[in-house]
Amino acid sequence: MTINRQILLVSRPKGEPTLENFHLAAPELPELGEGQVLVRNFYLSLDPYMRGRMNDTKSYAPPQPLDTVMIGATAGEVIESRHPDWQPGDAVTAMFGWQEYGISDGSNLRRIDVARVPMSAYLGAAGMPGVTAWYGLKRIIAPKAGETVAVSAASGAVGSVVGQLAKRAGCRVVGIAGGEHKCAYVVETLGFDACIDYKAGHLDEALRDAAPDGIDGYFENVGGAVLDAVLMHLNAHSRIALCGMIAGYNGDPIALKHPALLLTNRVRLEGFIVTEHMDVWPQALTELADAIAAGELRYRETMAQGIENAPAAFLGLLRGENFGKQIVRLV
Amino acid sequence: MTINRQILLVSRPKGEPTLENFHLAAPELPELGEGQVLVRNFYLSLDPYMRGRMNDTKSYAPPQPLDTVMIGATAGEVIESRHPDWQPGDAVTAMFGWQEYGISDGSNLRRIDVARVPMSAYLGAAGMPGVTAWYGLKRIIAPKAGETVAVSAASGAVGSVVGQLAKRAGCRVVGIAGGEHKCAYVVETLGFDACIDYKAGHLDEALRDAAPDGIDGYFENVGGAVLDAVLMHLNAHSRIALCGMIAGYNGDPIALKHPALLLTNRVRLEGFIVTEHMDVWPQALTELADAIAAGELRYRETMAQGIENAPAAFLGLLRGENFGKQIVRLV
Repeated sequence: MTINRQILLVSRPKGEPTLENFHLAAPELPELGEGQVLVRNFYLSLDPYMRGRMNDTKSYAPPQPLDTVMIGATAGEVIESRHPDWQPGDAVTAMFGWQEYGISDGSNLRRIDVARVPMSAYLGAAGMPGVTAWYGLKRIIAPKAGETVAVSAASGAVGSVVGQLAKRAGCRVVGIAGGEHKCAYVVETLGFDACIDYKAGHLDEALRDAAPDGIDGYFENVGGAVLDAVLMHLNAHSRIALCGMIAGYNGDPIALKHPALLLTNRVRLEGFIVTEHMDVWPQALTELADAIAAGELRYRETMAQGIENAPAAFLGLLRGENFGKQIVRLV
Repeated sequence: MTINRQILLVSRPKGEPTLENFHLAAPELPELGEGQVLVRNFYLSLDPYMRGRMNDTKSYAPPQPLDTVMIGATAGEVIESRHPDWQPGDAVTAMFGWQEYGISDGSNLRRIDVARVPMSAYLGAAGMPGVTAWYGLKRIIAPKAGETVAVSAASGAVGSVVGQLAKRAGCRVVGIAGGEHKCAYVVETLGFDACIDYKAGHLDEALRDAAPDGIDGYFENVGGAVLDAVLMHLNAHSRIALCGMIAGYNGDPIALKHPALLLTNRVRLEGFIVTEHMDVWPQALTELADAIAAGELRYRETMAQGIENAPAAFLGLLRGENFGKQIVRLV
């Protein structure tokens, strides 16, 4: 028999989550039934949205039930199949969650081409985070060449794609990230025009310098003080794609200091969740994979090793300790 | 010679404006030049946006220069003309500001039909406030029949039109207004399904009762605590037309307590100013005037008398003391 190690959510956090909210279980895998496929998960994606699922409050998705395997996207390989459409060796992505194996009837598996694009990228720039960036930038901000686009968490899985797509659209691109090291990467490797280290203070002055013509489009992953500061530099008719507000996920709600600026600048702000816009996924995924294969879309990953280390890696992600896409390697 | 009494802005308010910010001047009218038209203003419109013009800060419009006639819409009659297109007796609206007469080359005059619709209504439901309601409701909220639409300052010039148009679109309509008297009018005369007196407290409970299925569209004229409360009752994919935030016009900025709700509910929020959407004016004005003429769109006016009383009436408007559209009768 094969042991399938997995991480369960066993309690809900009060404020910042802790390792005690998780439990490593090690059940045996059942036998495959007729029509079923067994997948070995090579990579597990860790994403900020998972924090919301840990709470028992109204959000855009139902809370994760206690004592169940944490939700999450995975990439791996079929190792056994009793389904005519799937063969051992097929590379797939799925939503098997925080565990080493997954069993499926095939309906929730997506075939991926790992010859063109590395498998792990299908959890990042060529996967949900990439499509999130694509949708918020192209469908909400819809920048024109010459406009200035800003993005927070600029070195992250979503932000890094936002900025590179905005550069390809002919924009001036300003990143906001935590620390000199991340900022250097954002400018030198990703090609943003500027990157502001929000931990260095002087956010207002830094924004004035980095966006001398003001900001026309803002892609928000963070919220809190960063959003307050950006709001002061928005141009008339600017657009905000509201994707994440990780700054407030662990504590009390963070107020927005100057909401009247949304009126005086005639801002359009849209909150969105990319899984409600499945119509754009085929086009977005094709464009993103093509750009990665051509070497025109860069990304960076932070790899944790082993399912037992997923909780610690996730807590680090919430504190911004990752650099680029946070992944757990399971093999 | 004719004396043209007028109100000048002579100082900028610190916090709440006072009568001392204004000065009543009484210059003589100059002789009409060739190609010019002299208009006697019968009515002056007072509107919340004027408060923003009194400040010397960045907003969607330049500040009103000191020692000039306060900006404002007027309705009146041509009394002398040296322009071939205009004759004495022609009824017009214009932006002559807070004064008894206006001189124009005709380019900024709009001819109005006072046989169908009363002249003063062209400053309210059949004028800029009506088009403001029309644009925010139809182009931003775009409600579907069966949805719930809420509007603040519901008995006011804009809010009263918003709610009546939403009823005509088949929506459940919830008003928010200050005081029992206004609320009774909103329900009994304007035909809203419910109206909440925000001065009575218990805003959250009242919203739950008045909008049991949640709120799909919100037209905001007020901001502050009312906006905070409404945000807690928004449905997924709701829309906010951000038209005014009068609660914060006189003091420090009022924070928005729970901006993360804009994300979790995937809200689309748009700040707008109707003069940037001139393309909709002809259609909107026609529809509004037709509805008024047919007795299907009701409105209420508070009339001050005499240009010398315009400042006091304006201060009252900022405190919500008017009931319906605030107008100054100048004849």
